[in-house]
Amino acid sequence: MNSTQPETEDSEDGTRRSIGARRNPASQEAILDAAEAVLREGGIAGFSIEAVARRARAGKPTIYRWWPHRTALMLDVYRRFKNTKGFPDTGTLRGDLVSLLDNHLLGFWNNSLCGTVYRAIVAEAQTDREAAKVLIAYQADRKAYSARIVERAKARGEVPEDTNSALVIDLVVSYAWHQLLLGQLDAALAEAPAVVDLILRGVAGYKG
Amino acid sequence: MNSTQPETEDSEDGTRRSIGARRNPASQEAILDAAEAVLREGGIAGFSIEAVARRARAGKPTIYRWWPHRTALMLDVYRRFKNTKGFPDTGTLRGDLVSLLDNHLLGFWNNSLCGTVYRAIVAEAQTDREAAKVLIAYQADRKAYSARIVERAKARGEVPEDTNSALVIDLVVSYAWHQLLLGQLDAALAEAPAVVDLILRGVAGYKG
Repeated sequence: MNSTQPETEDSEDGTRRSIGARRNPASQEAILDAAEAVLREGGIAGFSIEAVARRARAGKPTIYRWWPHRTALMLDVYRRFKNTKGFPDTGTLRGDLVSLLDNHLLGFWNNSLCGTVYRAIVAEAQTDREAAKVLIAYQADRKAYSARIVERAKARGEVPEDTNSALVIDLVVSYAWHQLLLGQLDAALAEAPAVVDLILRGVAGYKG
Repeated sequence: MNSTQPETEDSEDGTRRSIGARRNPASQEAILDAAEAVLREGGIAGFSIEAVARRARAGKPTIYRWWPHRTALMLDVYRRFKNTKGFPDTGTLRGDLVSLLDNHLLGFWNNSLCGTVYRAIVAEAQTDREAAKVLIAYQADRKAYSARIVERAKARGEVPEDTNSALVIDLVVSYAWHQLLLGQLDAALAEAPAVVDLILRGVAGYKG
């Protein structure tokens, strides 16, 4: 990730906070508030660094110094929503993965600005190299974090030590992305437990 | 799908051909050739109905009559590439799914114009309702087609009759999309057999 990006650290409750050594926290929050307001009022189409600067009564250079890219700013607004959700800890791997899929991914995106914002971020990453970098770094970070679900299951003896945590999480997240990007979140929410069971148990009765 | 879209039918070898009742096949092919040439030369950024019309020496209204939307035309160019690939039939479910994933999805997209074009189509579908409709219809059609892989495995007794074919295919396709959209096709190709094994067999040693 670009060195002008915010550095973050995990806090006890699983949320992420900005260390923000290079930022004035008050102004940073004010700009994120303004960015969120611009998104709520005008949607993705009305979102620009100019519009956020106007709303925050800040100079454009100030915003660009902290967020070198429109997508980076959108992703920080998105991340702030995400942080209000506690991390799954149901006591079982199946419960945690279902919670990750239906509560933290599909349900989080469904019928909310978050889904629209995330779709726009993914879209921008397809044609803009800087947007792609920001998204790839965010994804790697989130998936490493979510892999703790599988690591906890290893510690409980639910799955063997050599289980590929990253791949299990990748399949859950991939399914969620695909449904988001096709606008099929409602149908996907109904499938969430079946998806997790397929990943954990495979195809029942498979003879291969 | 919009009634002005091409109707298609499956042919014996698993490719798709246009019925094209409303189209003049020669002109249609000429326009698709022109569209492909425009994409090859100028990439996504240079792709427009105007540019294709210029290249094909056709009127814009002619193109719009057949392809009401830029994305629909891009998708038909993409579909034409896709049709040159035979459908997997290795004799086993595992073999067919690995072939679907590494040959027909990840490998098809990797290091080629096809990946770039498909990423652009997915991106446009995130902010444009008409593009989304075209993509959703295409996806539903492709997945129903790919589900034949699982149906053949049912006929061979490899999996039980009540296996959720759609969900198995959905997980394979979702994984491929996610990797494409993150620009991680090379890493994903190496994982393809592990992904299929996870879907078919689940997490080895899972106690849940």
